[in-house]
Amino acid sequence: MTTPSTARFDHLLSSRARIGWDGSVTTSRPVASPLYEFGGGFPDPASFPYDGMVEATARMMKAEGAEALTYGDPQGYRGMRELVCHKYQLFENLHVTPENIFVANGSGAALALAFSAFVDPGDPIICEAPTFSGSLNNIRRHGPEIIAVPVDADGMDITAVREALERLRRQGRRCKLIYTIVNFQNPAGPDLSIPRRHELVSLAEEYDTFILEDDAYGELRFDGDTKPPVYALDRNGRTIRAGTFSKILGAGVRLGWLCAPPAMLPAFQGFNFGGGVNPFMSRVATYFLREHMEPHVKLLINVYRAKRDAMLRGLWEVLTGTDVEISRPAGGFFIWIKLPSGTDPARLEELALAARVQYTPGRAFFPGGGGERHIRLAFSYEQPDKCYEGCRILARAILDARR
Amino acid sequence: MTTPSTARFDHLLSSRARIGWDGSVTTSRPVASPLYEFGGGFPDPASFPYDGMVEATARMMKAEGAEALTYGDPQGYRGMRELVCHKYQLFENLHVTPENIFVANGSGAALALAFSAFVDPGDPIICEAPTFSGSLNNIRRHGPEIIAVPVDADGMDITAVREALERLRRQGRRCKLIYTIVNFQNPAGPDLSIPRRHELVSLAEEYDTFILEDDAYGELRFDGDTKPPVYALDRNGRTIRAGTFSKILGAGVRLGWLCAPPAMLPAFQGFNFGGGVNPFMSRVATYFLREHMEPHVKLLINVYRAKRDAMLRGLWEVLTGTDVEISRPAGGFFIWIKLPSGTDPARLEELALAARVQYTPGRAFFPGGGGERHIRLAFSYEQPDKCYEGCRILARAILDARR
Repeated sequence: MTTPSTARFDHLLSSRARIGWDGSVTTSRPVASPLYEFGGGFPDPASFPYDGMVEATARMMKAEGAEALTYGDPQGYRGMRELVCHKYQLFENLHVTPENIFVANGSGAALALAFSAFVDPGDPIICEAPTFSGSLNNIRRHGPEIIAVPVDADGMDITAVREALERLRRQGRRCKLIYTIVNFQNPAGPDLSIPRRHELVSLAEEYDTFILEDDAYGELRFDGDTKPPVYALDRNGRTIRAGTFSKILGAGVRLGWLCAPPAMLPAFQGFNFGGGVNPFMSRVATYFLREHMEPHVKLLINVYRAKRDAMLRGLWEVLTGTDVEISRPAGGFFIWIKLPSGTDPARLEELALAARVQYTPGRAFFPGGGGERHIRLAFSYEQPDKCYEGCRILARAILDARR
Repeated sequence: MTTPSTARFDHLLSSRARIGWDGSVTTSRPVASPLYEFGGGFPDPASFPYDGMVEATARMMKAEGAEALTYGDPQGYRGMRELVCHKYQLFENLHVTPENIFVANGSGAALALAFSAFVDPGDPIICEAPTFSGSLNNIRRHGPEIIAVPVDADGMDITAVREALERLRRQGRRCKLIYTIVNFQNPAGPDLSIPRRHELVSLAEEYDTFILEDDAYGELRFDGDTKPPVYALDRNGRTIRAGTFSKILGAGVRLGWLCAPPAMLPAFQGFNFGGGVNPFMSRVATYFLREHMEPHVKLLINVYRAKRDAMLRGLWEVLTGTDVEISRPAGGFFIWIKLPSGTDPARLEELALAARVQYTPGRAFFPGGGGERHIRLAFSYEQPDKCYEGCRILARAILDARR
């Protein structure tokens, strides 16, 4: 057995690799084998199209197996890019062409391409607080100065965005990107209101910066009307939009994309090494979704709505009468909770660990600290009965964790 | 139709995105639809396991479909990592464990993870001249100072490596990585000799740097004995090894990896955004190769040896009597040609374009300029009769391009 020693290498690491290398960036304490998995945004395994994907693979290989098994278009499989355009039109009345779409290995990688293209260490970028913990780790790896703005019931606080941009202007600096999660904001829950979407577009133009509009869950809307994407409202070409098949097909396919002005795509391509994102996988996913997207999304909406409602019922049955605040998102995978006054977050973590309930502590979502009073629950993975049951257990733990 | 204007964005691009943004980094002039595709290292489509991959998909989905369709291990699917260990043992007698393997989106992405982990702009790294053009684009994107050392019949010139390291030491600087393609060096053809492999290991230790050993083609050896990997000779833990399934299964699966000391893997993981490399695709590939790897590789060796030999026959039938130099690689996909004295490379490009023969001009493989006298031919894609025929045509064009 070759078991070489490991030479010291830390001193040779790049500055980007050293970010968080000391273990300073941690998120949540994972429960070894949770009975109630409310932590990550895992899609519902019972709804995966197992047979459909096998059938799509056979059909695809017959039609274009040789293309599936060799290097592909650096911009991504054209069939998938056409499908993304169709999806945008179908669900959001957004009209773009395959020339606007750049395929990436999931939306995390898509966002990383945008950060890579625009962000040097020390550059200012604006994002929400709270924002998705995965995006935060992604952003941090690029080393920018992160300027956090609050989120309220209408989404990102646009007045705070303006103030931040103005402050930077006075310093002679420029914000590179404004990163915002526009639908069922992860974790806080609200949609960015339509007036604010317009204001954001105006601000980007006024301050010569770009908007990175993240929308991983938009199709999975349970209540209310779809709001126009910032990308559709922006006539100035200052918006980059990120999307994914992870939530409507399965995260294991690792297929996401950026939608952007075509002239910008080569800047993303520079950071995609190799022959285009997964020619095989992108074809399988496309062949399946081409035939089944609308009914499958309809099915998923019912599945996830039932889970959200079961979770809310479990929480409210126990916590009514306290000053707890619980989001009621119109879609997506997550509920955001502001714990009742006097809850000890460390004690709650212990109790939840003992009860094998996994959730994500609020501090994971705040770029500059804070969030101790919050937790995020994912209702996506467990079945409705377990969402209900697990939330009753967790809610009782919350009551028990009061100082 | 939404056709927003595109705001100027060049001034906001990151410094890494600006590398080559002016179009200064170009490689070859592509033939619109080549009759003879000798350009890229495309695997042989006639040998793709079409039915085998469909069968593997069905079998895999039955056994672990739920895992295939959700987020995976950040280090990569364990079954694939076990298979890589098995492959290393089988073909190269290299013994490592799944804890040494980090899965990436193809070996281009794997190399990019190593560069990201170690290289800051301006850092010195050493590589071969010529070296693989794709790696060169990859390296350039990370902005290091590239120190080129020549390649001779025994591979990378180790004396030149020592001199470069010594020169850096005198300047108080340190080489971050020594990047070398050890088997059938792409494009020049030689294996790195065993004594030089040992010397390289010693140099890395002496000068406190790391070796990035690239081996995309090792199993596809037509002649002679397999040489021990640098990774196996290195008892100091200073080697990172990159590999891929692109050449023995199909580049469309985009599955590569790094093999490295386990303590180093978190440094790579920091640059992989999302839930582990393709849980679906890595399982399909693993299920196929677990059953079929040895006979499939044996088949491919015969396929590619016949293509190499057909190409060499076509070239020598026309060019014998000139002072041309033509490599005879013991494996892999490429032949490297030093054109006869007096050949006009621009004229040759025109003639080849007219004859619809695609090759890669030598300048694409040299980090600091040069290579005008060289061209690279890939024998991997076309069938033997077309390798022969196309090379006779190209060889006549070479004769016609003499000044």
